[in-house]
Amino acid sequence: MNCIVYKPIGIVHSPYTEKSQAPRQGTLNEDPEFVIEVFQDFSEGLDGIERYEYLIVLCHFHQSQFRELKIFPHGSNEKRGVFATRSPNHPNPIAFSVVKLIRREGNSLVVKCMDAINGTPVLDVKPYIPSLDSKP
Amino acid sequence: MNCIVYKPIGIVHSPYTEKSQAPRQGTLNEDPEFVIEVFQDFSEGLDGIERYEYLIVLCHFHQSQFRELKIFPHGSNEKRGVFATRSPNHPNPIAFSVVKLIRREGNSLVVKCMDAINGTPVLDVKPYIPSLDSKP
Repeated sequence: MNCIVYKPIGIVHSPYTEKSQAPRQGTLNEDPEFVIEVFQDFSEGLDGIERYEYLIVLCHFHQSQFRELKIFPHGSNEKRGVFATRSPNHPNPIAFSVVKLIRREGNSLVVKCMDAINGTPVLDVKPYIPSLDSKP
Repeated sequence: MNCIVYKPIGIVHSPYTEKSQAPRQGTLNEDPEFVIEVFQDFSEGLDGIERYEYLIVLCHFHQSQFRELKIFPHGSNEKRGVFATRSPNHPNPIAFSVVKLIRREGNSLVVKCMDAINGTPVLDVKPYIPSLDSKP
């Protein structure tokens, strides 16, 4: 099957410069602020986003290293298929985060509850809609 | 910024052959079954996935047509930025779905609550973990 080619729409400005500094799951990371800079060409695409409390952000984890289809999940000594884990080392390293929108400043979104390192490319931003996206 | 290249890990077998047949939001689409066929090379990566009730599936909406940064959201007569909508016509058309896992059959996942059309490329599958992914 053919390859799929995407161009980043933005970049993450993060307090973490290395993977080792980032928390394991961003959703529990409520203190530091991150800035999602959407490139100027796409800025208009953010209009109206202020009405949402949470956003879905899809990033390309550029430092991810996919090696094996079965890996040890965090805190487990039994290997599991990589698609049955939230490891960042998936064959296509697309990181999914639900982030809390603090404010928009022009083409920048100030958010919390993220784990991406500085310079992570952003592929897409969508509103998080609890009636669609929240499951028990 | 450089382009990002992904290779599909699978393909969706769907009762819908055209976009016009698909519901607007898959999450409300509880009747038909869909099959996510993960290519044989990646099959082992599914081991252990049966323990999850819901999965996050990222697809490439290959028939999406990005045209404008401001669009009319469904049922609205006021334009809004495309990133503030769940329109499929985003610059990078990565579809995010939370699907209900019915069963695994080898390298196929039988799921419900989807809206992809037949032949949609699958980029990634991850477990949906309510404590991380569900927001009020």
